[in-house]
Amino acid sequence: MNFASDNTSPAHPRVMEALARANEGYAPSYGEDTLTRAAEARIRDVFEAPEATIAFVATGTAANALSAALLCPPWGALYAHEGAHIFYDECGAPEFYTGGAKVVPVPGAHGRIDADALAAAITAQMTGDAHSVVPSALSITNATEAGTVHRPEDVARLAAVARARGLGVHMDGARLANALAASGAAPAEMTWKAGVDVLSFGGTKNGLMAAEAVVVFDGARAESLPFRRMRAGHLWSKHRFLAAQMLAYLDGGLWLELARAANAMAARLAQGLARLSGVELLHPVEANEVFAAFPRAAHRKLREAGAAYALWPETQSLEGVAEAPLSARMVASWCTQEEEVDRFLEVLANALG
Amino acid sequence: MNFASDNTSPAHPRVMEALARANEGYAPSYGEDTLTRAAEARIRDVFEAPEATIAFVATGTAANALSAALLCPPWGALYAHEGAHIFYDECGAPEFYTGGAKVVPVPGAHGRIDADALAAAITAQMTGDAHSVVPSALSITNATEAGTVHRPEDVARLAAVARARGLGVHMDGARLANALAASGAAPAEMTWKAGVDVLSFGGTKNGLMAAEAVVVFDGARAESLPFRRMRAGHLWSKHRFLAAQMLAYLDGGLWLELARAANAMAARLAQGLARLSGVELLHPVEANEVFAAFPRAAHRKLREAGAAYALWPETQSLEGVAEAPLSARMVASWCTQEEEVDRFLEVLANALG
Amino acid sequence: MNFASDNTSPAHPRVMEALARANEGYAPSYGEDTLTRAAEARIRDVFEAPEATIAFVATGTAANALSAALLCPPWGALYAHEGAHIFYDECGAPEFYTGGAKVVPVPGAHGRIDADALAAAITAQMTGDAHSVVPSALSITNATEAGTVHRPEDVARLAAVARARGLGVHMDGARLANALAASGAAPAEMTWKAGVDVLSFGGTKNGLMAAEAVVVFDGARAESLPFRRMRAGHLWSKHRFLAAQMLAYLDGGLWLELARAANAMAARLAQGLARLSGVELLHPVEANEVFAAFPRAAHRKLREAGAAYALWPETQSLEGVAEAPLSARMVASWCTQEEEVDRFLEVLANALG
Amino acid sequence: MNFASDNTSPAHPRVMEALARANEGYAPSYGEDTLTRAAEARIRDVFEAPEATIAFVATGTAANALSAALLCPPWGALYAHEGAHIFYDECGAPEFYTGGAKVVPVPGAHGRIDADALAAAITAQMTGDAHSVVPSALSITNATEAGTVHRPEDVARLAAVARARGLGVHMDGARLANALAASGAAPAEMTWKAGVDVLSFGGTKNGLMAAEAVVVFDGARAESLPFRRMRAGHLWSKHRFLAAQMLAYLDGGLWLELARAANAMAARLAQGLARLSGVELLHPVEANEVFAAFPRAAHRKLREAGAAYALWPETQSLEGVAEAPLSARMVASWCTQEEEVDRFLEVLANALG
Repeated sequence: MNFASDNTSPAHPRVMEALARANEGYAPSYGEDTLTRAAEARIRDVFEAPEATIAFVATGTAANALSAALLCPPWGALYAHEGAHIFYDECGAPEFYTGGAKVVPVPGAHGRIDADALAAAITAQMTGDAHSVVPSALSITNATEAGTVHRPEDVARLAAVARARGLGVHMDGARLANALAASGAAPAEMTWKAGVDVLSFGGTKNGLMAAEAVVVFDGARAESLPFRRMRAGHLWSKHRFLAAQMLAYLDGGLWLELARAANAMAARLAQGLARLSGVELLHPVEANEVFAAFPRAAHRKLREAGAAYALWPETQSLEGVAEAPLSARMVASWCTQEEEVDRFLEVLANALG
Repeated sequence: MNFASDNTSPAHPRVMEALARANEGYAPSYGEDTLTRAAEARIRDVFEAPEATIAFVATGTAANALSAALLCPPWGALYAHEGAHIFYDECGAPEFYTGGAKVVPVPGAHGRIDADALAAAITAQMTGDAHSVVPSALSITNATEAGTVHRPEDVARLAAVARARGLGVHMDGARLANALAASGAAPAEMTWKAGVDVLSFGGTKNGLMAAEAVVVFDGARAESLPFRRMRAGHLWSKHRFLAAQMLAYLDGGLWLELARAANAMAARLAQGLARLSGVELLHPVEANEVFAAFPRAAHRKLREAGAAYALWPETQSLEGVAEAPLSARMVASWCTQEEEVDRFLEVLANALG
Repeated sequence: MNFASDNTSPAHPRVMEALARANEGYAPSYGEDTLTRAAEARIRDVFEAPEATIAFVATGTAANALSAALLCPPWGALYAHEGAHIFYDECGAPEFYTGGAKVVPVPGAHGRIDADALAAAITAQMTGDAHSVVPSALSITNATEAGTVHRPEDVARLAAVARARGLGVHMDGARLANALAASGAAPAEMTWKAGVDVLSFGGTKNGLMAAEAVVVFDGARAESLPFRRMRAGHLWSKHRFLAAQMLAYLDGGLWLELARAANAMAARLAQGLARLSGVELLHPVEANEVFAAFPRAAHRKLREAGAAYALWPETQSLEGVAEAPLSARMVASWCTQEEEVDRFLEVLANALG
Repeated sequence: MNFASDNTSPAHPRVMEALARANEGYAPSYGEDTLTRAAEARIRDVFEAPEATIAFVATGTAANALSAALLCPPWGALYAHEGAHIFYDECGAPEFYTGGAKVVPVPGAHGRIDADALAAAITAQMTGDAHSVVPSALSITNATEAGTVHRPEDVARLAAVARARGLGVHMDGARLANALAASGAAPAEMTWKAGVDVLSFGGTKNGLMAAEAVVVFDGARAESLPFRRMRAGHLWSKHRFLAAQMLAYLDGGLWLELARAANAMAARLAQGLARLSGVELLHPVEANEVFAAFPRAAHRKLREAGAAYALWPETQSLEGVAEAPLSARMVASWCTQEEEVDRFLEVLANALG
């Protein structure tokens, strides 16, 4: 019953095989190898963006921070949902990479930035003088940290608010595959066609070992990317191993297949939870994450039964009043089994009486 | 005839196997898994440093930059050999991570910092007022970028110069295995016992896919490491895959075995070059790199024959006077074959007439 | 009728005389002169802090940013009131000087941080792992940006919340004189005795030309101050001219006399406004700033009559519905005259009908 | 006999008078006042640059650091003479403001960068890949830290080397007045017409209290200047007092008059020194600084007689062999008197026997 985080899941076997195959003999370093060329071409294909600049890195935090730096000067402000990973869970990586830009949290229900709140926040900041940081970038997570999904029109709406005020647009796509699988939208439709300038395209949470891509659709933004990546220590010397993962990811649509599987398991779990009284679903379940609240006693039972998942926020305690509800996050990964979901529901149902 | 860089070599088969084995099922993320615990323990064993703090990262540049940040405040100065990777080949990564510290180049023959020049450089900087950056750290590369090796007493001598003036000591051990294999010194002897506070322990150049360790011997320096690593985007979520590489590296002394093999091939090449007139060895060959100069025409012949290696500096041109000597760097990796070395020597000998 | 900002006021004549007197002959540079020694001693006296470390700078933004850097590492978080100058009006100076720390806004009525909201904000951030920035500092403005005053017990209460959680405490005292004049508290009582570690002691808004002091009460925090100041370009070579201003400021209690005068004029204005129907005072008037709302038509009349003051927020427009209320800020300076206050009230009363 | 540093001199009386006159009544803050407008216009006039962007700051270090940031990205390199203030005497201010750029020292006799060494240094750095920092800026000090002067054709020659390789050009004009007075060149001729993009125009060393100007001739470079200045805490609220100093400086050519006076006293001193055997002039004396070496015993005598000047380097000691020569720097300021020079020469002549 492993719902702890998609980061705890293994990599897909085809990815490990691709790594092994890439390990044959010598290859140029630092991205000058043929696998890297192929992977970049593949991404341009998938996103229908023949001019995109691409940089592979090993972590989503690096991808987000590099993206922020491409869009946001040191005296800039980047707007993100108040629950966004880029805001609270990267130990200030965006601030580090941008040289001290401000990351401004914007409210919105269920993980989706509220367009009016965004417009108001940006406008309030645009004093027109040098006393204030300059609104420079919007970061939209898709699928969101609340497990919901922006459809292309949602992205376009937020992007329009940003672009009308001179901001660039970033998409944190750590779980982009899940968002595309859920919405059925095409990658181009969900990103640059909807106004996204820079994308952090995630793979690690969805079956890769460690590989993400910074995809820059707006050529004017791309120039500094090689220097920023090198300087941050994120240019792999044996770069073929990043590329090999990405090629396996995109090959035959594996990425969407894995995301669909994870989404399906989250949906199965959500449906089961919805039928249990005593359980409150906190957000719509549109991708691979389920947020629910139920009594503390039930959490203890699940723990005793070996279920792994995070209380959400994690600062909640298992000590205390048995009936008090604690909220939690259950994440389905590409290899979550139906049996795990059903067992979880069974233990929980019993615990709830 | 692949002597381009140890970074172009594949990973050792046992390393890929270890990655595959690590890919079984779920494991806690962000370094909370058992493989990580085991790898850290193994490193503490190998270095006889039971209190060392360790952080695994994917690149040597990240390891060096994080190390620099542990030793050097923003208003500090870090001293390194003028040919050091940390000085010229990391696109200012140390400057980025430290917040703008100055990296000061120090001369020395054959890649080894001259102790007197170091003392003079530090002393000249120690004005005692806030107008000057504060000498804060010394970085010694071992094996050096010139292919030479510091023995423990060399390290101790340089470290003493630094410590007497209040500086911390870093060792860039991207090729530490080669230095230990060459010198026969014990890891502890070569590092903390000789005065090293922080070590960048390299694996990528010596048979790993992408894995290095920041090993902090001086506990007082370690506190900020987790935050700096996270903030730089260098904390892998599926951390077990970094640990698995390190465990395979240290298992059964594989690391030293691979280094010995590379060193042996460099020695073989050097011996052959030494017998050729028209070839000048530029530095003693003590580890796995060979620096030599020979006529341009011979370089052309080697290229035609398919030899891969870098002119050194790389800005030299193959166009021009045939007899003019160009200097070059030939690097032996863990899988360099005798046949490659012999073929290289054969082609070169023919070219030289 | 000049209520635009205390920054628009001239310097007090005694300050200009002090500058002229300081201009006699040669004096050591960079703070090694006797006036600087005397000014530092004077501040230690005034604050009853014989061990305090002091650095004079020309602007409040520099004083605040340097203070933040003394208390907050790059991966830290600094908590300030959501209306604080350090949060929104310094173009990210704290982020610049700290190396990218996060400035977290905390709510509270009338410019005073709510202690419970502060505790909750800090606690929520203290995840205990490296994914989150580390709560490091609290910044309390006194007198606040809303014109209210923290008494020593208010400061102590907030400081206790911060210190209990390991944070250092900064006081933005751009208008400290006004807060002390209003409360009658002694400088030591209001600062270090109430838990403040570092103080930005302001003079520019209260009769100086350009002079502020960073006063570090906690010696453990002071070491890097000289380097940070020099590196930021804030160490004056002809330092005597900063010191001369500070000496004139503190001489014979001029600083408190000027603050009392400004406070009295603000009180006079507030009393007059309170008697006018159609005027709403937005915050208690405890120092030298008055925040009030009244109809747009009245603002137009005041402008026509030559009154200078800022709409607050400044993004409000004088175009629009005549009866709609606009909020404004009126600041009394050390040289505001009773006639100015009375004239303002007269014009406003007429405008309101 | 005060030759310690031009920073130890007082401000010119007309400057203090201007400050007093500027202190009349209220004026808009943050540079929105009429004096600031006038001073900016005056500078554009003087430099024949009607489109120049100007920012006044209080220190030369701030002016230099802001200039560096306008020309040099974080991954850039700035080339300066190895004895330049920007390289060794600003505690890494350029590194701070640029976000970690590298300041590369270039050799050259008598404080003037050697054009061929500059070309070689830049070319060596231009590897064309992201491993190396990108040569971005050249900084020429005029008058140099060795007391010599670049004529416009010297500036143009160095600027050409830089511009041909894509670098921007900065001039550190802390003593520009002295260079112009010495060369007779027009300000425009010495700066933008010779290829300078950004100038740090100094006043503090030459009769002002604390005022410098960043003058940006290349409009494409100017956009970020207001944000960078604000963020660094260098925007004065009572900005009129910076402007007043600048207006007094330029009024009636006072700036050149003061520089000529200082240069003349340095020349007088140099001529006297040249006639003394046992004294070696170390650099041509072209502006207001004199560098000479003479026996330790003579230094002791001068100190006993009350002469103030710096040993150069300052790390030399007055303890030791009496006959051993120590080098020193004597700086003439705008108010250095003939009597001081003659007395210095007299004491020295006696000491030398």
